Amino acid sequence: MSNNNPSFHLTGLIAAPFTPFDSKGRLNLGVIPAMIEHYKATGVSGAFVCGSTGEGVSMSVEERRAVSEAWREATKGTGIKLIIHVGHNSMPDCCALAAHAEKIGADAISVSPPTFFRPQGIEGLVSWCKQAADAAPGTPFYYYHLSNSGNYKMAEYLPLAAKRIATFGGIKFTNENFMDFGLTMAAAKDRYDILFGCDEILLSALVMGAKGAVGSTYNYAGALYNRIITAFNAGDMKTAAVLQTESMRFVRIFFKHGGMSANKAIPGLLGMDCGPARPPMTPLTGKQIAALKADLRQSGFFKLIRP
Amino acid sequence: MSNNNPSFHLTGLIAAPFTPFDSKGRLNLGVIPAMIEHYKATGVSGAFVCGSTGEGVSMSVEERRAVSEAWREATKGTGIKLIIHVGHNSMPDCCALAAHAEKIGADAISVSPPTFFRPQGIEGLVSWCKQAADAAPGTPFYYYHLSNSGNYKMAEYLPLAAKRIATFGGIKFTNENFMDFGLTMAAAKDRYDILFGCDEILLSALVMGAKGAVGSTYNYAGALYNRIITAFNAGDMKTAAVLQTESMRFVRIFFKHGGMSANKAIPGLLGMDCGPARPPMTPLTGKQIAALKADLRQSGFFKLIRP
Amino acid sequence: MSNNNPSFHLTGLIAAPFTPFDSKGRLNLGVIPAMIEHYKATGVSGAFVCGSTGEGVSMSVEERRAVSEAWREATKGTGIKLIIHVGHNSMPDCCALAAHAEKIGADAISVSPPTFFRPQGIEGLVSWCKQAADAAPGTPFYYYHLSNSGNYKMAEYLPLAAKRIATFGGIKFTNENFMDFGLTMAAAKDRYDILFGCDEILLSALVMGAKGAVGSTYNYAGALYNRIITAFNAGDMKTAAVLQTESMRFVRIFFKHGGMSANKAIPGLLGMDCGPARPPMTPLTGKQIAALKADLRQSGFFKLIRP
Amino acid sequence: MSNNNPSFHLTGLIAAPFTPFDSKGRLNLGVIPAMIEHYKATGVSGAFVCGSTGEGVSMSVEERRAVSEAWREATKGTGIKLIIHVGHNSMPDCCALAAHAEKIGADAISVSPPTFFRPQGIEGLVSWCKQAADAAPGTPFYYYHLSNSGNYKMAEYLPLAAKRIATFGGIKFTNENFMDFGLTMAAAKDRYDILFGCDEILLSALVMGAKGAVGSTYNYAGALYNRIITAFNAGDMKTAAVLQTESMRFVRIFFKHGGMSANKAIPGLLGMDCGPARPPMTPLTGKQIAALKADLRQSGFFKLIRP
Repeated sequence: MSNNNPSFHLTGLIAAPFTPFDSKGRLNLGVIPAMIEHYKATGVSGAFVCGSTGEGVSMSVEERRAVSEAWREATKGTGIKLIIHVGHNSMPDCCALAAHAEKIGADAISVSPPTFFRPQGIEGLVSWCKQAADAAPGTPFYYYHLSNSGNYKMAEYLPLAAKRIATFGGIKFTNENFMDFGLTMAAAKDRYDILFGCDEILLSALVMGAKGAVGSTYNYAGALYNRIITAFNAGDMKTAAVLQTESMRFVRIFFKHGGMSANKAIPGLLGMDCGPARPPMTPLTGKQIAALKADLRQSGFFKLIRP
Repeated sequence: MSNNNPSFHLTGLIAAPFTPFDSKGRLNLGVIPAMIEHYKATGVSGAFVCGSTGEGVSMSVEERRAVSEAWREATKGTGIKLIIHVGHNSMPDCCALAAHAEKIGADAISVSPPTFFRPQGIEGLVSWCKQAADAAPGTPFYYYHLSNSGNYKMAEYLPLAAKRIATFGGIKFTNENFMDFGLTMAAAKDRYDILFGCDEILLSALVMGAKGAVGSTYNYAGALYNRIITAFNAGDMKTAAVLQTESMRFVRIFFKHGGMSANKAIPGLLGMDCGPARPPMTPLTGKQIAALKADLRQSGFFKLIRP
Repeated sequence: MSNNNPSFHLTGLIAAPFTPFDSKGRLNLGVIPAMIEHYKATGVSGAFVCGSTGEGVSMSVEERRAVSEAWREATKGTGIKLIIHVGHNSMPDCCALAAHAEKIGADAISVSPPTFFRPQGIEGLVSWCKQAADAAPGTPFYYYHLSNSGNYKMAEYLPLAAKRIATFGGIKFTNENFMDFGLTMAAAKDRYDILFGCDEILLSALVMGAKGAVGSTYNYAGALYNRIITAFNAGDMKTAAVLQTESMRFVRIFFKHGGMSANKAIPGLLGMDCGPARPPMTPLTGKQIAALKADLRQSGFFKLIRP
Repeated sequence: MSNNNPSFHLTGLIAAPFTPFDSKGRLNLGVIPAMIEHYKATGVSGAFVCGSTGEGVSMSVEERRAVSEAWREATKGTGIKLIIHVGHNSMPDCCALAAHAEKIGADAISVSPPTFFRPQGIEGLVSWCKQAADAAPGTPFYYYHLSNSGNYKMAEYLPLAAKRIATFGGIKFTNENFMDFGLTMAAAKDRYDILFGCDEILLSALVMGAKGAVGSTYNYAGALYNRIITAFNAGDMKTAAVLQTESMRFVRIFFKHGGMSANKAIPGLLGMDCGPARPPMTPLTGKQIAALKADLRQSGFFKLIRP
């Protein structure tokens, strides 16, 4: 199904799953069904796997295939949409992953730009994306724009990508440049999905018209974010802002405790142990996890995220 | 009047005036009354003079005093509040400007951090600000946080500044870090004013509770932004977002035509000629101004900003 | 042979080979023997394969193995030392490449840090390196420090790496921080090899005691650089500086013509066609190559590099 | 005397004096004669006042005039050349300082670029410099290129500046880009002075032909650096490198103890008390100075710098 099918859209909260590892860093995929149950209980509509949160680039191609297949299997029949991130520094690997994603029936693929060498300008970036997209000619393609991608403007990227990439579906926009976000939304005109990727400031994107979002904290706090969306839709901006500030507060807590590594420890506190982050990230020790838990509890986090 | 007077607040749209120069780069202050008339006609509540837009750091101390006095004179009895930016790489000059601002009856002063040497951490930054604030002990003090200030977090700055600086009134927050903005708003608790400084994304701050804003485009487009605020307050988010996108569009136009130098040419197209930008900025030629005007007209800009 | 064998050292000029591709971007390894002949004719002592110049991260693991094997085969019996870069964003792939390098008898391996996620501090960096080094326990390990690696100080890295990594052999130092270079040289005390990696400023490293260097322009200009070394060793600093300036001049030429992509076109002008650079780099067109050639010729480049 | 006088040159070690303050941060110029005696004893040929080390931008225009006059007075008849840095964010102040420097008979002036707004490209930079230079039409002009100046290439700047600025004398090159240094030296062709500004890596510039240097550590360690120059001139590269490494070691020590603030405390340990650094720098406490002294002593610093 290509994006020429205008009925395909990604909307609502899409979790970017942590990839579960065991204590030795090996894949430990048994926890996935519990994650999906949590998504269903908290109103999460999709899973964006093997991206930044999923430590995609820290895995081998074989591992990424295995993770993708496990998610495909586990999401079947649930209505949870599956987007597979296939970005890689090496284009041959990127294409192999894209073809595999299509073969197993992913709902969409996504590509972030290479981080050692950089595409040259918007032309170079679209050309890079097109090669990957062409390896999955029947699957909607979403560009993954993130803060360390380079200084590309999405409002310039979108028209060119829409013209050149037959399966272009939209952009995962993980960047605080709201002027570029607004201009990109305007250029997308409801035909392409601009999925906002900064959970802690979602409300500032909702007010500009965002209809979908991808993020790591939707793995466990979807209920909170859906309350923000509900308040926003009801015109209760005060409540929406108060709840968004609560989101900022717990994000600040896990940043204080180690950032991404601490974030990855949170599902384990809710019975969905995703294990340690892989190198080059430094996983939290048991003691550090206990301190994180204590801080989160004191802040009211566990009540806050309750469905 | 110190901020211990809890009734002092800065709210609504505050313009950051361009400093008018003649063709030889000398002060040309006769245009100020026309600017103030425009503010009144478009619902602008204050003037933040000698800041970035006002090219404060490109003027001598004597010139900054003259500009400040002209604004003090011209705003008298208008209800337009006057905030004078006194930031300077040299603390003696900064203090002299602060004392002068108090002497002439400024409603508030503001300080941006030095840009050659940098204060060390939040402690160093608050210490820098305190020295300046102490030179105007009867005038509310607002810290000017801007993108090139360094990576200070305002949510950490505010509590320390509020404790140490007797006249602390709030922050001009010209930065896209909305998580820091939200946490700073929460810390300010309506006691301190957090004035948002990125005109083109104002709506994303309004939704987080912003009650005041300082910016260069409020010099001529206050009517548009007040329509955004009105729509927002009425719960009409769709209109608010559409109008905010129009703001992004004309900002994109003047960036294409030269950025700040082009922005400074816009009042002249409305009968309030502010002259060329000073070195190190490169002013637009007459031909370039004509091209800017043509692009703005084609975009519908002149209708858009009509009161 | 581990570095506990104090007789193992890398010295002199070591080329970082371009990986030869055909016009469709597929491996085209037949040109390798000609490259080695050129090395022998110009006094190049080693080959550092699949690094930045070799576009290692733009290839699949399978391709990197094939390239490494071709170089192993072709260097046999030549005295040209073979160093294989095995750095990868994914540690499993990095280890697989390290083990393969050892299996085929590489003289040394090298690892650059991951570029999506970053090791945390010197501890994290050494820990990352140790995992890779341990996968090739009989092969000397060289850390690849380059400008986009992050702000690690090698003078701090070296003592810790030397203590933790049994096979630690030294550092490929591709960075303009000469203070760190000098302090690292002092810490290495002739036991570890600090290979300088910025060809165009080699002389500034020689004077600080550099005994080895790795770089892309040694693929074709080894004769010139050996003349610099000879002049330096003879105490003729004037000649050395003049020749080094000539090196800067031709580097400036290929930067003007496209940087790395243009650099990769140079061997083809000398009968060793390495084909186009891979995405995300943009290869030169035939016309662009002709323009590069004309500029190089006019500058006297082809005479300059003659053995 | 303009640079049209080809006999004017700045060579050898030029100290960038700390500006002496008393404990309250007021000018304390009585120590200047002792500094000059030290220069004479250690072979320092000039003083570059009110630059970075001199905290020029942290002083008012009046203070900068007073400091300049004190240095003019104290250097008279000593053969020590006086270069006055007149760079300022505000061009009117910059010109006033330039005119004053000429009036008091400075041997040369220097200008660093503004740091709030930035000149646009090489054209903008030369245009900025020309305005300042024209305010002192009889005094040689040196551009001050430093790491935080922006990414200008001096090899492009020099030819344009030489053409446009009648008094152009050269560049104070405080940047680690040795390729640009080498190409600039080649463009300067002994007509213009390219004064290297990174003391701790001076040897790497000497080998490329540097004949002059400006730096903060020449205030107290000129004897050491002159030994480096002597060894270099004698062809004894080993000794030169060993001594340069010693320079790196003590620079590392004062960086560990607070950077510039610690550096400014060193003359006081030698009987030339320059007092505390001004805000925004944080001066060392007495206890911190004692710790710095202990570390320096243990490293052999005081013997190392002995004339």
